[in-house]
Amino acid sequence: MGLLRARGKVYKPVKDVDIGKNSSEPYTPADVKAPRVAGILVKIFVWILESWILGPIAVHILKRDNRIHKFVSNAEIPEPPLFTPIHASKDHTEQEISPINLDSSPIERVQEAINCLSTDTESGLCQQTSTFRRWTIRDYSRAYNSKETTPLEVAKRFLAAVKNSSGPNLKMAFFINYNEEDIIRQAKESTVRYEKGIPISVLDGILVAVKDEMDCMPYPTTGGTKWLHKVRQCTDDAICVKQLRSCGAILVGKTNMHELGAGTSGINPHYGACRNPYNINKVSGGSSSGSAAVVCAGLCPVALGVDGGGSVRMPAALCGVVGFKPTAGRISNSGVLPLNWTVGMPGILAATVEDALITFAAVCNPFPLNQPKFTQPDLSFPLLTSSQSLANIKFAKYEEWFNDSTEDIRNCCDHTLKMLCRNYGWKTVEVTVPEIEEMRLAHYVTIASECTTSLGPHLEKLKSAQIGWDARIGLRVYSSFDSKEYLNAQRIRNRQMQLHQEIFKAADVIVTPTTGVTAYSLQDDALDTGELDYINGAALVRYSISGNFLGLPAVTIMIGCDKGGMPIGLQFIGKPWSEATLLHLANALQELCIGSYPKPKVFFNLLKKE
Amino acid sequence: MGLLRARGKVYKPVKDVDIGKNSSEPYTPADVKAPRVAGILVKIFVWILESWILGPIAVHILKRDNRIHKFVSNAEIPEPPLFTPIHASKDHTEQEISPINLDSSPIERVQEAINCLSTDTESGLCQQTSTFRRWTIRDYSRAYNSKETTPLEVAKRFLAAVKNSSGPNLKMAFFINYNEEDIIRQAKESTVRYEKGIPISVLDGILVAVKDEMDCMPYPTTGGTKWLHKVRQCTDDAICVKQLRSCGAILVGKTNMHELGAGTSGINPHYGACRNPYNINKVSGGSSSGSAAVVCAGLCPVALGVDGGGSVRMPAALCGVVGFKPTAGRISNSGVLPLNWTVGMPGILAATVEDALITFAAVCNPFPLNQPKFTQPDLSFPLLTSSQSLANIKFAKYEEWFNDSTEDIRNCCDHTLKMLCRNYGWKTVEVTVPEIEEMRLAHYVTIASECTTSLGPHLEKLKSAQIGWDARIGLRVYSSFDSKEYLNAQRIRNRQMQLHQEIFKAADVIVTPTTGVTAYSLQDDALDTGELDYINGAALVRYSISGNFLGLPAVTIMIGCDKGGMPIGLQFIGKPWSEATLLHLANALQELCIGSYPKPKVFFNLLKKE
Repeated sequence: MGLLRARGKVYKPVKDVDIGKNSSEPYTPADVKAPRVAGILVKIFVWILESWILGPIAVHILKRDNRIHKFVSNAEIPEPPLFTPIHASKDHTEQEISPINLDSSPIERVQEAINCLSTDTESGLCQQTSTFRRWTIRDYSRAYNSKETTPLEVAKRFLAAVKNSSGPNLKMAFFINYNEEDIIRQAKESTVRYEKGIPISVLDGILVAVKDEMDCMPYPTTGGTKWLHKVRQCTDDAICVKQLRSCGAILVGKTNMHELGAGTSGINPHYGACRNPYNINKVSGGSSSGSAAVVCAGLCPVALGVDGGGSVRMPAALCGVVGFKPTAGRISNSGVLPLNWTVGMPGILAATVEDALITFAAVCNPFPLNQPKFTQPDLSFPLLTSSQSLANIKFAKYEEWFNDSTEDIRNCCDHTLKMLCRNYGWKTVEVTVPEIEEMRLAHYVTIASECTTSLGPHLEKLKSAQIGWDARIGLRVYSSFDSKEYLNAQRIRNRQMQLHQEIFKAADVIVTPTTGVTAYSLQDDALDTGELDYINGAALVRYSISGNFLGLPAVTIMIGCDKGGMPIGLQFIGKPWSEATLLHLANALQELCIGSYPKPKVFFNLLKKE
Repeated sequence: MGLLRARGKVYKPVKDVDIGKNSSEPYTPADVKAPRVAGILVKIFVWILESWILGPIAVHILKRDNRIHKFVSNAEIPEPPLFTPIHASKDHTEQEISPINLDSSPIERVQEAINCLSTDTESGLCQQTSTFRRWTIRDYSRAYNSKETTPLEVAKRFLAAVKNSSGPNLKMAFFINYNEEDIIRQAKESTVRYEKGIPISVLDGILVAVKDEMDCMPYPTTGGTKWLHKVRQCTDDAICVKQLRSCGAILVGKTNMHELGAGTSGINPHYGACRNPYNINKVSGGSSSGSAAVVCAGLCPVALGVDGGGSVRMPAALCGVVGFKPTAGRISNSGVLPLNWTVGMPGILAATVEDALITFAAVCNPFPLNQPKFTQPDLSFPLLTSSQSLANIKFAKYEEWFNDSTEDIRNCCDHTLKMLCRNYGWKTVEVTVPEIEEMRLAHYVTIASECTTSLGPHLEKLKSAQIGWDARIGLRVYSSFDSKEYLNAQRIRNRQMQLHQEIFKAADVIVTPTTGVTAYSLQDDALDTGELDYINGAALVRYSISGNFLGLPAVTIMIGCDKGGMPIGLQFIGKPWSEATLLHLANALQELCIGSYPKPKVFFNLLKKE
């Protein structure tokens, strides 16, 4: 009967759980019992999982061996469920912020953001040419205003670069869709505005790519599939896309993503593998693979992604760019594919923290439109850091968790954190973050259940051959959860919310590596079938989950490279609504690190000839 | 394959659904495909459902034939889920209310409630002796203050009456537990306070019974089972019990209930059938069976119940007393068995609307303690109606739904509503309440999933012989739902929330019969095994669900009897936080009806000798 019943964990009441440094709570490393499979093995696995008799047994064994039964299904949990990570606004007040008026238009908010940026930083950012830096939004804006170049010229260079990247040498599938004519039309309109001296905002003429999980006209929204756009029409821009467009940004197309966002490698069997600009034989990470890669490769200063389980931050870290996921509710989900309801939201991928801030000012939304209004928090409060430095910042660090990464990541993150604290007079507080692995599994049960419920009616009408092999496996496990497993996962959410409230009494920000591994090798056997690599997958999402499951804001920036030359990211996880503090800290960190970035092997300079 | 797949309903976007009188939305009567079973048939059914092979097939057929597959499991629903019925306070403002300070103590609030009551009503209520009326809280209080009697005398009469009711003639199982010594001790203490001229409040010395689903010292909390109190200790009063005790109320024991609240007949195989004081061969309704029956029989002016799916209002209607379920969150769930998390809450059973108001003032709670604070609505606003009449009240009536009840109920409710409007100059607005049957099934999926999740760890350790036969059947169906069914149910909750917001733009209150049938016969074959009577069950809950699934406040009062002499209830369902309006209207209705109530066959006069 061992096959049928795994004993459940008995959780102690959350008020009795100690988050102090010397807590007796154990650190439970992920112990994934699922070998990497790709190629023919994936197909055999699909056959087993989809068979009537063997399928349920195999799924049962997978869930049991990966401790879902122990930590979620059969667990005894004293707390009631908490279903959504919506935070009351009054819980948080920030140090030294410039309040902005959220009733203002995106254009006004972008201008206010620009006013917050020091002119100091401005000259610092664009003059230094001895080390590698990407062109920022303000670099483009200045070049357009000074007639050094035009949006049309940049757009043409962009189109040439995209063709180059997807050609036989590089074989990088950055985009699922881009429309040359539509891009040129937008670029011409922007160019005319600059010619007339009436650009709409600093974002006028800025190229922005959009993950193919959110609506952007005139493209279908595929979600990385071959079918979803056929059953769900895209009839309007997503709200955040519309906001960027209203500021004059040029929407350059829909970036590649892991099929249905259900994986982290960025290998898409239908549209090709995205590949990492630092090394085209490595993965880009996912699921916002293309959005991270185009920013890395210099094609856009900014791209939009969607983060349901680290899907913005993971590829950002692997590709060495800034990845920013604000507090749940801060950017509207309207026009984003409903692949889940309670963990995902749009995020920003950018070359610099400054660009993330400007973009955030454009897309932040006080009243998300697709949430029923009776659950709205009051969001009328400040967004932007002043240029002054924040004093007395305390970083919470959980030693065992922090160190559960490769040696290179561990050393680089540790070194950088020390340097940061030394430089700014900030402090590190040792804490324990209990039940991290439990939270990862609870989040998995949640996103899986919501995804299959949302897609259910479509999936049932679909021929399974239309779905990629690895996604078929994912969906089979996704659909296996019962209501008790879903509800227990929400009880774990309640525990974690309370535990994190305790941690945030001791510190301002939780600091972690962004991922447990850097970009790993892209193997040829995975190109057609995708691959299942839950071990690397678990290492990638190790530090991402609280951002989604608890709706906390989080930002990753590149702090260096491993011995193989692949980027390493450091993550700050903040209190609800503390985006101002987070971006301020990230900017301080970036100022320390930015000189040391190596240039990606694949990089396109769209602003000037090199 | 018809066995395996029932086609799902394709719901149109909720914004396209018309709630007007001439809406094309169909009224779907409940079409229950499950015969009444009791006695040996229940045992055979249990054997089938608990068998490994036949069980899942039988459950599948039940779910398919009762349209759960069609309306919930396989449905296409455009809306995202809404998980909890928590309402923002600002959505509602009331006409003519006396605001009370929610920071005040229960004692102060009770005094404020008393101040709101007209002395007019007062004399009206107690002088009229030509027709049947129950003694009210103020009647007892006056009798204690005037030394006409003492709490000790009343307590002794109470104990004698309870013994009488449970004796061989009546066989009425009102209580699961009562402790003579504890009751006498409280009564003596209260008597001393009156002797000294220092009663705590108007509730001092008032007998209050508590459903055995909420904690009340010194009793175990059985939930109507033989085992739950053994695995969950009762160590303190529930908050609402504590509040009543602090006002001087005498807690007289734990009333009988349907086992685990999982049925509506009030037949409990472990503790006996509650029976209806109007006719001991009829059911009392449930699941707060004993609390309704003791108020009906004159044993207490007030009792507490818990309403997860009409469980306060249904037995109140069947026993001819006032049943009042406030807005979700208005009374704390702390100390209530967590048989569900998102639909149940305490409610009040009382002899008169006035007593419901006084009790409500004592137990209303601005900050429910068992809800995480980050989901708290702001509840700082008024509770009590002034003595002035409300003008321009509009009742929403959905003809086909209203009329889906027995002829006697339909005629009586229709007649009473007309009389009420004529008398006060109020209006009736014809509306359509779409998808009522869909909501009933979605609520069932929700309460079932939450119940089995909450009890899961206990149930797994239990020998099934410890559970009643009918509850075993219930639990087998309860545990059969997957995460998709749960999530789809929450999407239906979202639709209904939006539809009801539309209805409340057109009217102040929705008016319905409280139940589709009056108390039906209690058959002997059900006494040991319980019975499954989903047809009568569906008729009982027909009008209850929005109160729970959407957290709306609702009140039922008796308006007459059917030809068999069994009580008929009329229900008002209000906007969120509109308790003041609701109780005001209920009181107005009661003033029209109260003279016509027949006396129950089983009635005990505890205040005066008859």
